[in-house]
Amino acid sequence: MITRRGLMLVLSSPSGAGKTTLSRRLLAEDGGVTLSVSVTTRKMRPGEVDGRDYHFIDRRRFDAMVKNDELLEYAEVFENSYGTPTAPVMAALEAGRDVLFDIDWQGTQQLRDKARNDLVSVFVLPPSIPELERRLKTRAQDDHDTILHRMSKAADEMSHWAEYDYVIVNREIEQAFADVKAILAAERLKRARQPGLYDFVRGLQAKL
Amino acid sequence: MITRRGLMLVLSSPSGAGKTTLSRRLLAEDGGVTLSVSVTTRKMRPGEVDGRDYHFIDRRRFDAMVKNDELLEYAEVFENSYGTPTAPVMAALEAGRDVLFDIDWQGTQQLRDKARNDLVSVFVLPPSIPELERRLKTRAQDDHDTILHRMSKAADEMSHWAEYDYVIVNREIEQAFADVKAILAAERLKRARQPGLYDFVRGLQAKL
Repeated sequence: MITRRGLMLVLSSPSGAGKTTLSRRLLAEDGGVTLSVSVTTRKMRPGEVDGRDYHFIDRRRFDAMVKNDELLEYAEVFENSYGTPTAPVMAALEAGRDVLFDIDWQGTQQLRDKARNDLVSVFVLPPSIPELERRLKTRAQDDHDTILHRMSKAADEMSHWAEYDYVIVNREIEQAFADVKAILAAERLKRARQPGLYDFVRGLQAKL
Repeated sequence: MITRRGLMLVLSSPSGAGKTTLSRRLLAEDGGVTLSVSVTTRKMRPGEVDGRDYHFIDRRRFDAMVKNDELLEYAEVFENSYGTPTAPVMAALEAGRDVLFDIDWQGTQQLRDKARNDLVSVFVLPPSIPELERRLKTRAQDDHDTILHRMSKAADEMSHWAEYDYVIVNREIEQAFADVKAILAAERLKRARQPGLYDFVRGLQAKL
């Protein structure tokens, strides 16, 4: 068996473009993919589970992690801090597991800067604005203000599409999911991600 | 619809690793892929068709093509010359079609030098040497000397695996073919190969 180094897969998109659906399906169907669980200083909401949705930590611990360079990326949103702990990501990559990140363009820029060769970044676009609006409205849990806020944030998020390696236009979820799986399958076949190949080919050559 | 620039897909491998089978299936199943037909100075063999297997040309014409820089790559094999005409490849890429090349490491090196951003290179390895030998022997059309010659050439060809973007170990042809298709699907989704994206996103932004 050829050993493999894991990769960091970033899916970014404006809300409503399908990123969350794609992430959930990938985690459910591909046993080689782990979700990166962020730390946050915000309060736990009903239904959330500590360690699954986030690691809920206090401000002092968060600031210490920043100071000790223990976060791959972090950001402030509405006076709450969010960040990606470095250690579990590195351990997964070393073990040949891929890590999925559900982060925005600001997080991706920080990640890209720190993990150039391990990063595979994918931007998901909606097929049209009416379709984006429709998808946001059919989410029962979001109120009118949240929808308006997300629509206005969508323009900002979308303006960063050109920083990503791959771009998927999510016209139809089955095709978009097949696209994500193809990207992952191909990236796993990159020569540089198969550090065991040298020994494998040397073994073949020895028998010729 | 987002316009796309075609890519140049190179499949290289030692004889018997499965390259020809993979190429034929890809051409049969994917209407977006065209085979690059080489020019050659060697004589046509029984069963070959001019313009399908090769463009059969004379030495004078070949030398003129080299002199006029009309070939993307060329090589001399047993006093015969082989080369890839540039013009049909460029026309296909512009039209958003992908071009498949069945060439060895020497041709790939020349292609890489001329077409960096359009090139996607895949190296196919056999799972083991006994399996490689078995596959070469079950080809009814090859005599004993040809098999020995190919086995000795395999070592030379394999030593260049590290120059390729992707490496597939062909343990089982269905999986290897799925791997080739995933690489092609992913490469088509690369941002840089979708020159229509800028206008598409601008169109979305205008409606927000």
